[in-house]
Parts: sequence; C-alpha cells; structure tokens
Amino acid sequence: MVVWDEEGFQGRRHEFTAECPSVLELGFETVRSLKVLSGAWVGFEHAGFQGQQYVLERGEYPAWDAWSGNTAYPAERLTSFRPVACANHRDSRLTIFEQENFLGRKGELSDDYPSLQAMGWDGTEVGSFHVQSGAWVCSQFPGYRGFQYVLESDHHSGDYKHFREWGSHAHTFQVQSVRRIQQ
Amino acid sequence: MVVWDEEGFQGRRHEFTAECPSVLELGFETVRSLKVLSGAWVGFEHAGFQGQQYVLERGEYPAWDAWSGNTAYPAERLTSFRPVACANHRDSRLTIFEQENFLGRKGELSDDYPSLQAMGWDGTEVGSFHVQSGAWVCSQFPGYRGFQYVLESDHHSGDYKHFREWGSHAHTFQVQSVRRIQQ
Repeated sequence: MVVWDEEGFQGRRHEFTAECPSVLELGFETVRSLKVLSGAWVGFEHAGFQGQQYVLERGEYPAWDAWSGNTAYPAERLTSFRPVACANHRDSRLTIFEQENFLGRKGELSDDYPSLQAMGWDGTEVGSFHVQSGAWVCSQFPGYRGFQYVLESDHHSGDYKHFREWGSHAHTFQVQSVRRIQQ
Repeated sequence: MVVWDEEGFQGRRHEFTAECPSVLELGFETVRSLKVLSGAWVGFEHAGFQGQQYVLERGEYPAWDAWSGNTAYPAERLTSFRPVACANHRDSRLTIFEQENFLGRKGELSDDYPSLQAMGWDGTEVGSFHVQSGAWVCSQFPGYRGFQYVLESDHHSGDYKHFREWGSHAHTFQVQSVRRIQQ
C-alpha cells in the first residue's frame, strides 16, 4: 500500500509491503490519503496498532472520510498499519456467541451479513467471537457502519472472549453487522 | 420501521409500513433515531425521496452517525423513507459497465464486493449499471463507505445509464464497492 501526508495523493509518499508501527518515524504527522494496491490491510488511529481500526481493501482513499467509520467523533488520524491474512472467501468461518466467554446461544457464519438481525440473530449485541478461519470485520451498526473491529484466526488463536479483546476502542458489546475481509 | 424525533429512541414516535414522502408532515423537524423491524428501507436526506440516500436494514440506529455515510459533509437530516424490494440473496444479479450508456467492458455480479478492484475491476469508476434482479447498494469508497446509491430492478426498469440517474446527490462515476441489500 502507498500513503501520502496530504489529501488527494499529494505531498510526501511512502510505500509499505509489511507492517508499519508508526508513520511518525517517517516524518509524517499523519496519513491523509492512501491507495491499497494489493492484499487487505488494517489501519489504526494511533501508533503501535492502537485506537480505532479501519479495514482497508484494494482501492483508493483520497481523504480521511474515505476510511473513517461514520462515528460521531471521527479521529482524523491514521498512524499505524499492518496486513491482514485473509482466507479464501469460501473458506471463511466465524462463530458468534450471545454472551462473553463463548457462552449462550450461538450462530455459525460463512457469509457477509449487513444485518445480523435479518439473519435471525436476536438483539444488537454479540458477547464473544471465535474465528475458525479467515479474517472478518464486525461493525457497531447495520450496513457496516460505526466502529469497526477486525477479527482474525491468526490473532488471539481466533478467540475474542470479551469486547476488551476486540480492540482498545471497544466499549460495548454492540455489533449489528459482520463480513469477511476481501483480499 | 419506527422513527423518533430525538436521539436514543426518545421523543415523538411514528411507525411506517409503507413509504413516507415527508416526516415534516408529521410535525417532525427531522428523524434523530430509528429502528427497522422488518424488510429493508432507504432513507433520504430531503422530502420527496431526494438528496443523500441511506440504506436501512434490520437493526437499531440510535443517532444520525449510525446511518449517515462517512462523508466529509454529513447531512444531519433524514426526511423521507420508502421500502426496498429485495430479491432472494442468491437470485440477485447486477451488470456493471465501464462507460455510460452500457458501453465498454462489463462485469457480472451476484455477490457482495467490498472492493471492486479486488475482484479484478480496473479503476475506481463505474459508468453505468443494469440490475437484472434484486436491490443493490453501491458506494463511493471501498468497504461500503462514502456516498451510497440504491439500485433496484423495480426502478428505471433496472437501468442506470449515467450517474445522474443514481440519485440527485451523485456528482461523479466513482464507485468502489457494491453489495446486495438484505431483506
């Protein structure tokens, strides 16, 4: 992927092929535009892969509103990046649980769900996740809107037993849409 | 679907089972929270189904940031609504064309694509669309972000031959993600 320190693919430019724990070390104040040329990536608000998460799939992102979730308090900052290891789309599998620690009712997912309620899930929360294979992104609101949380079979052994494990920016169990990340 | 004139499902409440050309006629200044209890809907910025479009699938939307696209200039207004007629997910089919008026290279879609480039589409634009069946939403940026445009087989005979036909808020051919709308 390629990043620029100005909007519209202007200013200083840097190309990554592996993780970048901080663009500050490149002399960037923040990233203001980017293009993903291959693979899938996740960008983070803060250095060291902390803060809000933004899934970045192939394409062009000319300004912060192109990648930021539509949150009430958009973080106009993108500071660290790492690649995401996706499975073949057909082989991605995820289990969602009603309660934390893999308890309560569960659902098995192998497709994209812009609305978990429309697939029959009761309520607006998910208590815990187990990723059998692939990489997934779940979102606070239907239609993949709001805070995003990246879930990977390669991290935490695929186990996310409480919202505290979904990311440093997660403060509730609210999850209303889930999809596979596309390589 | 049910709408409220305050955030967090507070204030005056109104329930729709069919299209609503203007909530102003109900004495609402705007809609500030909503729940979709069944079906899929599209909400519009202005009365008479004009302005920005927001796909609303089953679930809870406690405030405007839950449905607004993550645009640089969010319209904090939601004034008219209509239901969307979806096909069975497996039967949804869409053709995308490189140029306006159904010309140039084309691609056949029957699945969700968070990144058209990742599926092999060249560039960040789509010139025209023909919806064979179902209802689709295409978005300006990858990962279903930015301006949304609803495309339906039941409208315009499924033909959208120029961005002017995608909606009154469309000003470019930029489309980087496309998915089926979920009933």
